[in-house]
Amino acid sequence: MFEQILQTHSFEPILLEKAKGSWVWDVDGKKYLDCVSGTWCTNLGHNHPRIMQAMKDQMEKLIHRSMWFLTPVTIEAAEKVLEFVPKNYDAVTFLQSGSEVVEYAISFSQNVTKRRKILSLKDSYLGAFGLAKQSSYHSGVASKLKIPYPICSTPNCSCLDEHNELIEHISKKYVDELACFVLEPIMVSGGILKPCKAFIEKLCKELQSAGVLLVSNEVTCGFGRTGKSFGFEHFDIRPDIVAIGKAMGNGYPVSAILTNNQLADGLSPGEMYYAQSHQLDPLGAVVAKTVVDVFVEEQIVKKSQSKITQIRNIFESLTHSFIKEFRTQGMLFAFVIQSHNNISSKELLVKLKYELLKEGIIAGASLGKEILRLLPPLTITDKEISILKEKINKAFDAI
Amino acid sequence: MFEQILQTHSFEPILLEKAKGSWVWDVDGKKYLDCVSGTWCTNLGHNHPRIMQAMKDQMEKLIHRSMWFLTPVTIEAAEKVLEFVPKNYDAVTFLQSGSEVVEYAISFSQNVTKRRKILSLKDSYLGAFGLAKQSSYHSGVASKLKIPYPICSTPNCSCLDEHNELIEHISKKYVDELACFVLEPIMVSGGILKPCKAFIEKLCKELQSAGVLLVSNEVTCGFGRTGKSFGFEHFDIRPDIVAIGKAMGNGYPVSAILTNNQLADGLSPGEMYYAQSHQLDPLGAVVAKTVVDVFVEEQIVKKSQSKITQIRNIFESLTHSFIKEFRTQGMLFAFVIQSHNNISSKELLVKLKYELLKEGIIAGASLGKEILRLLPPLTITDKEISILKEKINKAFDAI
Repeated sequence: MFEQILQTHSFEPILLEKAKGSWVWDVDGKKYLDCVSGTWCTNLGHNHPRIMQAMKDQMEKLIHRSMWFLTPVTIEAAEKVLEFVPKNYDAVTFLQSGSEVVEYAISFSQNVTKRRKILSLKDSYLGAFGLAKQSSYHSGVASKLKIPYPICSTPNCSCLDEHNELIEHISKKYVDELACFVLEPIMVSGGILKPCKAFIEKLCKELQSAGVLLVSNEVTCGFGRTGKSFGFEHFDIRPDIVAIGKAMGNGYPVSAILTNNQLADGLSPGEMYYAQSHQLDPLGAVVAKTVVDVFVEEQIVKKSQSKITQIRNIFESLTHSFIKEFRTQGMLFAFVIQSHNNISSKELLVKLKYELLKEGIIAGASLGKEILRLLPPLTITDKEISILKEKINKAFDAI
Repeated sequence: MFEQILQTHSFEPILLEKAKGSWVWDVDGKKYLDCVSGTWCTNLGHNHPRIMQAMKDQMEKLIHRSMWFLTPVTIEAAEKVLEFVPKNYDAVTFLQSGSEVVEYAISFSQNVTKRRKILSLKDSYLGAFGLAKQSSYHSGVASKLKIPYPICSTPNCSCLDEHNELIEHISKKYVDELACFVLEPIMVSGGILKPCKAFIEKLCKELQSAGVLLVSNEVTCGFGRTGKSFGFEHFDIRPDIVAIGKAMGNGYPVSAILTNNQLADGLSPGEMYYAQSHQLDPLGAVVAKTVVDVFVEEQIVKKSQSKITQIRNIFESLTHSFIKEFRTQGMLFAFVIQSHNNISSKELLVKLKYELLKEGIIAGASLGKEILRLLPPLTITDKEISILKEKINKAFDAI
């Protein structure tokens, strides 16, 4: 099936052709509540009218230009994004993909520090290729420094008692070789896992004081997905570099990297050099600018809090015995599935996904991790939450 | 200046805000003939009406969806692109950037062959990051196999006499370790350099017969830029993988990788796995489909031949003594600049670029290579060619 498409991954036997807000429609007219927000991108819902209009207006003017020239909307977008991301970054560039900005952040860190190694938490997803991939859980490269970490949400935890040794070990053994610590604040692909606040803060403090750069991978975590505007705000830290993507484009391919000009001070033009066909293009810029405008003017993050609570309450009330664990953080939800009645967890997960699809709910299934994952748009309405409640109950009961 | 933009490269002190066909306008209303086609992307001219309309129509339906689903327009675009690229490839995937498709081609080759090394010609530009960058001329990584090659355009040349030894050396010493030979058929960033036909054909034959995969980097060469639809058509070769980008989007960020499903037969899902936020998204697909439609229906490549001849004749007639060499291949033109009257080649090149800009012509200047480079759109009109002639004469005379 779909033999004209390279099978980089599998595809559902359903063709989608229309979308609006929280909904997508297949070619037969059946509609689905998109509880994965596209590929975790449409935090504002599909085909947001303000974004579509801004794109159309920009398309009357300029969508692309030579990389040696800037455009007014690119500068406007840069200023808006720099203002929207907390902690006062002063320089940004726009690229296309999330992987690319994390990869650039790593390479930039290596150039700044003149060190090579990269540290990450073992369940992080950092990118689809290159060093970003190698430092991610899904890569087969074992030589990278992917460390364990404590998970907890207790304010006065004892995690540090157990993990101080690890932090000290890294400080002593690796710190002189480490270019950066790439943190995915909440590990989303890895399973909606939030590392212990005290651990992260201590680790970052130790590393940054030794000149290791802190990169925050906000590609999925950014733009309100974790309940705060950016994932790193869950910790008392200040990343040196922030990589954003996905929701900044709300369906359009645009990503960004933020840092401070002073970090680049010692770099030669050759070390700084990066140029891509669509870097800083005005069409991506107008999308980024409009997405930020909508987030700010419509107080999207603040207003999403009550939706998050509603959905969390609904999901927490599910007591089906194949649910091993429920994980949540902001507008991120995951059910860890366990085998039940002699049916394997894998089989149950696939069944769940298709029962939900039958009911008109798109959810994600991570087979390796036995996780059913839901990332609804932040703009989901109360009525849509009621529908989600009814459908998910029906699908779960049908198993 | 522009301190809010990360200085990955320098920017001209002119803000662009509008474009149409071969022209772009700055914020003061001054218009420029865009002889670099954006970032070598708008082979059909800026804001092509059919492409803009197709995008707007698609924006009424669906621009983005979960990576696990396909859309009718994605499949249609896949079929069109597979039909448009010669030599019968049977599978394609769409990504965003040219660097990314070359990088995927390399990684795919490594997985298929279970070999690691990459061969390239020493003046190739293959990408902005990762192994694609490391195998490019602009990378500082010297350990990669970047080989010299003969340049000639004589049908019965004697290049092989001189270079047979190199081919044999590679065959004997490296062939068992080589995953792929990544060929940029005409090295554009490297300086508009065309390798000898006999050399490339012999090298490809030797390598492919030993199981080395041939990747054609058509990111810049594709879609008529070199005078043929695709750059590899200048040689009697059949690449195993074709990487395309830039002009397939005509200003929109979409790229593609083409190959044959049978190549992937032995790969595990983990080895095949690749997934990006906007991979196979319908908005990029509708652009790719429409660009192919325009190329086919309007016979763009065929019709560009007379424009190419006209521009070549104009440029060849320039005899200014600072011109060291004129290079051309299809709609690619380069003047190599030499020092003159005690003014360095670098200074002359910068002066030339700004004289042209003053006259309303955007051209590219490669300072390291002392090259003035022009890549006008394939759709440049006869009237625009007259303007180019007048302006380039004026600018060159002013030096």
